[in-house]
Amino acid sequence: MSSCDQPGLMPVETALERLFAMAEAAPINETERVSLADGEGRILAQSLIATLDLPPWANSAMDGYALRLADWTGEPLVISQRIQAGSAPLPLQPGTCARIFTGAPLPLGADTVEMQENTTLADDGRVAFSEPLKLGQNVRLQGQETRIGDEVLPVGTRMGPIELGLAASLGCADLLVRRRLRVAVLSTGDELVEPGQALGPGQIYNSNRRLLISWLHRLGCEAVDAGILPDDLQQTRAALAALADVDLILSTGGVSVGEADFLGVVLREEGELALWKLAIKPGKPLTCGHFRGVPVIGLPGNPASTLVTFALLARPYLLRRLGVQRVAPLGFKVPAGFVWSKPGARREYLRARLENGQVLPYPNQSSGVLRSAAWAEGFAEVLEGTTLAIGDSLRFIPLSEVLG
Amino acid sequence: MSSCDQPGLMPVETALERLFAMAEAAPINETERVSLADGEGRILAQSLIATLDLPPWANSAMDGYALRLADWTGEPLVISQRIQAGSAPLPLQPGTCARIFTGAPLPLGADTVEMQENTTLADDGRVAFSEPLKLGQNVRLQGQETRIGDEVLPVGTRMGPIELGLAASLGCADLLVRRRLRVAVLSTGDELVEPGQALGPGQIYNSNRRLLISWLHRLGCEAVDAGILPDDLQQTRAALAALADVDLILSTGGVSVGEADFLGVVLREEGELALWKLAIKPGKPLTCGHFRGVPVIGLPGNPASTLVTFALLARPYLLRRLGVQRVAPLGFKVPAGFVWSKPGARREYLRARLENGQVLPYPNQSSGVLRSAAWAEGFAEVLEGTTLAIGDSLRFIPLSEVLG
Repeated sequence: MSSCDQPGLMPVETALERLFAMAEAAPINETERVSLADGEGRILAQSLIATLDLPPWANSAMDGYALRLADWTGEPLVISQRIQAGSAPLPLQPGTCARIFTGAPLPLGADTVEMQENTTLADDGRVAFSEPLKLGQNVRLQGQETRIGDEVLPVGTRMGPIELGLAASLGCADLLVRRRLRVAVLSTGDELVEPGQALGPGQIYNSNRRLLISWLHRLGCEAVDAGILPDDLQQTRAALAALADVDLILSTGGVSVGEADFLGVVLREEGELALWKLAIKPGKPLTCGHFRGVPVIGLPGNPASTLVTFALLARPYLLRRLGVQRVAPLGFKVPAGFVWSKPGARREYLRARLENGQVLPYPNQSSGVLRSAAWAEGFAEVLEGTTLAIGDSLRFIPLSEVLG
Repeated sequence: MSSCDQPGLMPVETALERLFAMAEAAPINETERVSLADGEGRILAQSLIATLDLPPWANSAMDGYALRLADWTGEPLVISQRIQAGSAPLPLQPGTCARIFTGAPLPLGADTVEMQENTTLADDGRVAFSEPLKLGQNVRLQGQETRIGDEVLPVGTRMGPIELGLAASLGCADLLVRRRLRVAVLSTGDELVEPGQALGPGQIYNSNRRLLISWLHRLGCEAVDAGILPDDLQQTRAALAALADVDLILSTGGVSVGEADFLGVVLREEGELALWKLAIKPGKPLTCGHFRGVPVIGLPGNPASTLVTFALLARPYLLRRLGVQRVAPLGFKVPAGFVWSKPGARREYLRARLENGQVLPYPNQSSGVLRSAAWAEGFAEVLEGTTLAIGDSLRFIPLSEVLG
């Protein structure tokens, strides 16, 4: 326990800074090319540069009639062609208009579109315009959204549905992305039993690996289920050695707890180990180190502690290793619907809901189970050393901001 | 266009109500059993009921010493056993204490734990307690988090990392879930070309199917890429008929636009069709109908319109068909960092970011491209008929709340 006994607690910001430094010291630089269909959740390894203008040609924003405004004297115009979306129009005959539909290319020579609702089709087939016309109205100009050469998505962008749609609109069929991060997930604790097995005396079901593996998949990582670490020095060393090809070893539970700290012993022998006492609740003990050069992060083993430390520390670390710059979740100032009378030494992340515009924490904030989190919509952040009265403002982080 | 010319615009709330009614008229009732590892994103078909207490037995919240408080006279106590997590302790010998570690079961007869930091180990091996002890301190009681028989997750819960972790902590190895929703995604528009192909005159790349298929996967749906609908009545009918085994046909672009409305013709002939003019921007035209009994939703084809209408209308419809009750995204009151001087007839969803705690919209809010959305962190909701000054409050919906 000695190296855990640092004076004072480490602020969350300090821990994040150190984790970012660790992440940036071991970036994932290998790339691969994937089709857009396989691009979901991947990280761009190079900027996406527009290779065409958007729109690629001037087009109509309405169903109506295209004309050259200078040709219009106020008299009805003859319709000289009909332009559907997807067709290639002829140049506009001077002194005429063209029937045109939304998204169809403007014919050469036309500069203005009037929507059909403001026109009248006369018996002789000519079109009368009933309202004053403005040069360029209802015309989408070539390149008004994006120009050839624009950086549309920067390197390090996480590709979700929107980004994939945008890449498709530029005609990209595939993307150069960083390879997936390989993360080994293991638990420590002789009391752990896998779901589906019978529970013996003193045993509990392991839940953290299920939580973390599912979460890692959402983050686009490859998760290696490394199981429960055996309670034996030789076997612990062998189990870690078998993980040599991963980018991170993520453990939960007990490096500093108890006296049978085989993981800690192995890390001290074959790498390095720092034990941080974080000013965070739930959470507090976090292990950072290396095993034979592979980064190791050890999260506390209580489920709610695992949840909070992964959300606020491990998740940004993982994304940063892949070169993602914006890794902080959005937070929103929301009034408290509860009283907080005892200022704490640690920053608390209460599992909470919004009700009638106010933050309400789950009644039982024990770090022992995930029930509070399953009920919650987000984390209510109570800063260290503060109290709150009803209506006081605090930061609320939606779970959706950290779960994906 | 005639059936589109309803008097006035349909409020978003009305459209949602109608979509929920449609969804509840065609619920997905078929179920399947999946392992927890395959449970990500699935919807519970039956409540998850606790089949054990959590914790399953009283245990220590600290590394320290367990005792029966009534046996303690203030004198040091002999250590009669040592209890690691995962072990099965003997009953506590009267007048002694037990060395105990975090998460280890409390021995029968013990009722109190003192953390090791507040104790001293004497030379004779006895433990002196330096602080006043409180009955029950540092003890987690059996069932204090969850009791056998508690409904831990209600039917209709979407299983994410937290819910899967919670199910694991209760020993569940598999779950009864609703079968996946099968959604056919198709585009209309002769101008559309698939990414990777060459762009001819008047053509643009199709982006909506990429957006929607990726999004549907995030929502746990099975997406059938039905391609681009051919510009021909017979072929349109045949293409739709080939989709008889899907739960929803989701189209984008142009049912009401132009004159070559083959999808509209087929729906009128072989089902039903309603064209809604929504009070939403971007968005406005939405098609709802059936083809031979299969529900059809037609979203507008401009990418930002597709995005907003899927996020706010189609997504809740899909989740509700699977029995999810909480389908509304979280929104937060945030001050405007921009001026809105012209009250609109439609509710606008600006693609926007938060900067210094204020909402800033992307400068170009054209519905033509997704660039604004890729830049954005959420939708800023400007209600119909309102104006905004800097600092006025408006609702902000994080994209993370609708993208998953």
